[in-house]
Amino acid sequence: MKIALCQIDPIIGNLEYNKQKILDGYKKAIEAKADLAIFPELSLVGYPPLDLVEKSEFRKAVNNAAHEIANQTNSVGLIFGAITEDFDNVGTDIHNSAILCFDGEIQFVQHKTLIPNYDVFDEMRYFDSAESVSIFEFKGEKLGISICEDIWNDADYWYRRRYHKDPIQELLKQKTSVLINISASPYSYGKRAARKEMLSTLTKKDKIPLAYVCCVGAQTDLIFDGASMCYDGNGNLVKVGKSFEEDIFVFDTKENYKAIEKCEESFEQEVLNSLVFGLKEYCTKLGFKKVLVGLSGGMDSALVTYIAVQALGSENVHVILMPSKYSSEGSVNDSEVLIKNLGINSDNVSIQPVVDATLNQIKSILKTEVKSLTEENLQARIRGLYLMTYSNNNGQLLLTTGNKSEMAVGYCTLYGDMCGGLAVIADVYKTDVYRIANHINRDGEIIPKTIIDKAPSAELKPNQTDQDTLPPYELLDKILRMYLEENKEFNEINDVIDNQDLVKRVLRMVDMNEFKRNQAAPALRVSSKAFGYGRRYPIVQGWRK
Amino acid sequence: MKIALCQIDPIIGNLEYNKQKILDGYKKAIEAKADLAIFPELSLVGYPPLDLVEKSEFRKAVNNAAHEIANQTNSVGLIFGAITEDFDNVGTDIHNSAILCFDGEIQFVQHKTLIPNYDVFDEMRYFDSAESVSIFEFKGEKLGISICEDIWNDADYWYRRRYHKDPIQELLKQKTSVLINISASPYSYGKRAARKEMLSTLTKKDKIPLAYVCCVGAQTDLIFDGASMCYDGNGNLVKVGKSFEEDIFVFDTKENYKAIEKCEESFEQEVLNSLVFGLKEYCTKLGFKKVLVGLSGGMDSALVTYIAVQALGSENVHVILMPSKYSSEGSVNDSEVLIKNLGINSDNVSIQPVVDATLNQIKSILKTEVKSLTEENLQARIRGLYLMTYSNNNGQLLLTTGNKSEMAVGYCTLYGDMCGGLAVIADVYKTDVYRIANHINRDGEIIPKTIIDKAPSAELKPNQTDQDTLPPYELLDKILRMYLEENKEFNEINDVIDNQDLVKRVLRMVDMNEFKRNQAAPALRVSSKAFGYGRRYPIVQGWRK
Repeated sequence: MKIALCQIDPIIGNLEYNKQKILDGYKKAIEAKADLAIFPELSLVGYPPLDLVEKSEFRKAVNNAAHEIANQTNSVGLIFGAITEDFDNVGTDIHNSAILCFDGEIQFVQHKTLIPNYDVFDEMRYFDSAESVSIFEFKGEKLGISICEDIWNDADYWYRRRYHKDPIQELLKQKTSVLINISASPYSYGKRAARKEMLSTLTKKDKIPLAYVCCVGAQTDLIFDGASMCYDGNGNLVKVGKSFEEDIFVFDTKENYKAIEKCEESFEQEVLNSLVFGLKEYCTKLGFKKVLVGLSGGMDSALVTYIAVQALGSENVHVILMPSKYSSEGSVNDSEVLIKNLGINSDNVSIQPVVDATLNQIKSILKTEVKSLTEENLQARIRGLYLMTYSNNNGQLLLTTGNKSEMAVGYCTLYGDMCGGLAVIADVYKTDVYRIANHINRDGEIIPKTIIDKAPSAELKPNQTDQDTLPPYELLDKILRMYLEENKEFNEINDVIDNQDLVKRVLRMVDMNEFKRNQAAPALRVSSKAFGYGRRYPIVQGWRK
Repeated sequence: MKIALCQIDPIIGNLEYNKQKILDGYKKAIEAKADLAIFPELSLVGYPPLDLVEKSEFRKAVNNAAHEIANQTNSVGLIFGAITEDFDNVGTDIHNSAILCFDGEIQFVQHKTLIPNYDVFDEMRYFDSAESVSIFEFKGEKLGISICEDIWNDADYWYRRRYHKDPIQELLKQKTSVLINISASPYSYGKRAARKEMLSTLTKKDKIPLAYVCCVGAQTDLIFDGASMCYDGNGNLVKVGKSFEEDIFVFDTKENYKAIEKCEESFEQEVLNSLVFGLKEYCTKLGFKKVLVGLSGGMDSALVTYIAVQALGSENVHVILMPSKYSSEGSVNDSEVLIKNLGINSDNVSIQPVVDATLNQIKSILKTEVKSLTEENLQARIRGLYLMTYSNNNGQLLLTTGNKSEMAVGYCTLYGDMCGGLAVIADVYKTDVYRIANHINRDGEIIPKTIIDKAPSAELKPNQTDQDTLPPYELLDKILRMYLEENKEFNEINDVIDNQDLVKRVLRMVDMNEFKRNQAAPALRVSSKAFGYGRRYPIVQGWRK
């Protein structure tokens, strides 16, 4: 069977746009002589649709669009993802479904059985689980159709399983000859290797070909990397879709392909690609052509500016330098070199007159001396004020530049450097920011080496460096990785770090700054545990008080 | 059987504090000659603990604390809520459980069967469902113990049911003689009447007494109102715990009590009580003694200031007036009357010098004229800057004053009037803000009538009123209520409003401003659908484009 994997980029809720994408893909699949065209999970709706699912008018519109798609099919099969309803008055009555149509009609619907509800997934909020799964005979093959999570619960592969049921084994018991899985699998570094290993184990064990189609695109903070995969009946990965772009390609289940060994790039290149793609998608889908960055002379804003140039072109990136009396000469010079290297436009305007005017006004009502921290925050906020004013007037999207280490410990100013519509590198640790910067410079200096080499500083008071307040980033990031990604706790972390005071202090900083992150811009997710939607901590709590 | 309902206010994650609360309550129950003391759902942990549940060290600490509590029991029974583990390696392996102990040991554990996963509830993220329920015989009674949601799925009461199972009916089949439900039921206006009606129907039908114990307190944005309830075997509500405060009281299942008809107050008084309580709790649990409000002379900041005074006392509320050249003389005078009426301290400082200094600096880099909206936002942001500077230096918590109507349509400035740690009235529609203000003045003017009577205005440009941009609030709120609380969509709303352009415009404003609300301070929840945790909308989406 020739299966066209149609790796498309839907817009959440834009049914007309998504419908057209599916019909266009279907046409291309027909031209490529495919027997069947398959599209990702919820491809008609966009993933994740969140509470849009709860609107009955929306569901009705999805149902209409699904039938309009089916109406346009000929004998070539078409599988796409959509929400459907069952009206049995128990549960949500809504399903996350794969719809198979041909000859002008919906011929078969398979609901999703395993409903993920962890990290960034909230699907039990919306979807009832399938009561059963069935194969569907089509053009001489017994299709076993499943949806994303359905394939992630193999009893042999996982030591711990999330679910009791295993819909894939159910389908195999029914003599499935070709497995099809339609997915929307959010990107994080390492995820692709995990997919490859898991799917390879499964198809090898069960001696069955698999077409696994993923969506591509970014939906606010979630990035979908595409890289749809096909396996032959020996557990070999034999076809891989493009990364971070749409793709349509045909997989012939009867053909002998060469096995593909590697489908990942280096950490630095892959994360860079994902951030460039995520930013581009956010701007495109919201209709922003231009972005704005406050350039401090430090590493983070330099990297964000580089990413913006890659995503939107140098003509669409504007930076503003906003020195104060604490800004070093080096910072301004380094920024100017970067501006030249990237070929972007810039402005330079001092915050000092406004800092002075504000202090002058505010001192009249403060009953106490102005504290150092107050003055530091004030400077950051006036920079935020400038940037937002510029952004409001000229219509660019302001990008925030904080990294994950800073966001974790709250080394950032609410309504100051946290101002902006998208946090580009807030899921990248500071040590990884350096790794990526060095990677960018691998064939010659783009980000000035002086920026990479100097001690990180907020430059909000004289001779300040980040390490006045924070432990060295290598150590900090080691603790943060264990605490955030590995979900370890104080004792487990201290077993490695062997410094009770430090570990306690770092965990406490992370916990205490939940209130700041709660008001942060959405952050492009590139790790298995990002701040934001997938990590839900109480602001008010007393654990480890 | 004499059951002591112990309506306590736990702190999320503070196991030592919560353990002590439970032991203190148990001691009081013994003094009151109770046979059994019951505490709310997850009373040892605090509700909702969110991702703290995912930490194995945390769960271990909970287990230790649970055994420490059990160790201290004598022959009087004690039921409290905690998380427990099953280690079967399928699912989360974690349960939301009721633990019954006496004679120094844990004697019985009942897991929760129905796991809510809608609106503000995310419990399927954390908890596996009980496989079965069992009664427990204790002092001659057959106790049927359930947890919160378990009692909310009666097949006769609900037209639509969320779950297939009904653990209460299972318990009744086992000849339960006394029903016990331990709950953490978040407050919203009307919820108490719903509880009363549902529980009354159930106990009447099943001819069984019920002790329903709720927690009290506020956990960031969620308010728990207490008001624990007891029903006799005829479906009469016979005992009600205090509202918005801790309470311990004894219910004798054999005694004849008089039925209680009413357990709600007027909308205005109850919402006011809940907001005062929510603010007080937020400050107490975070350790803030004092709060700060920017007083504009308008209705919203006046109400927030009044609420703050009720919550913390006039000596702990500081307000700042920050006039600009667009501020009316009336606004300043009205504010001064309010300040006098409430007996609070205030400062007055013009934003004009900083507005001028900023415009002066920023004009040098703007290539275009300064737009009116830019200048409006600028003013709001400089007020935010002043307030945050004052708050940083003096350690008060800054309160935001936006109402639900404004937050819905984005009639507010990000990093401006949206600055602050808690949004006190962001779940109260503007029309309800007026209702509450008039209620406050029922026995004499506290909030100046001039503030209530004048046309709402942001005073960010000459002669501005809210209705230059927005439809009249009566009409706007009507649309918003249908869209937000009733989950209606365009066609359904327009059937009532009969103004396509207006309805379309309002819904579009709500959808478009998701990015602003995404960065908003947590808002005390008093309605059945508040912005924030319980309402999850995509920022980037194309429905109704």
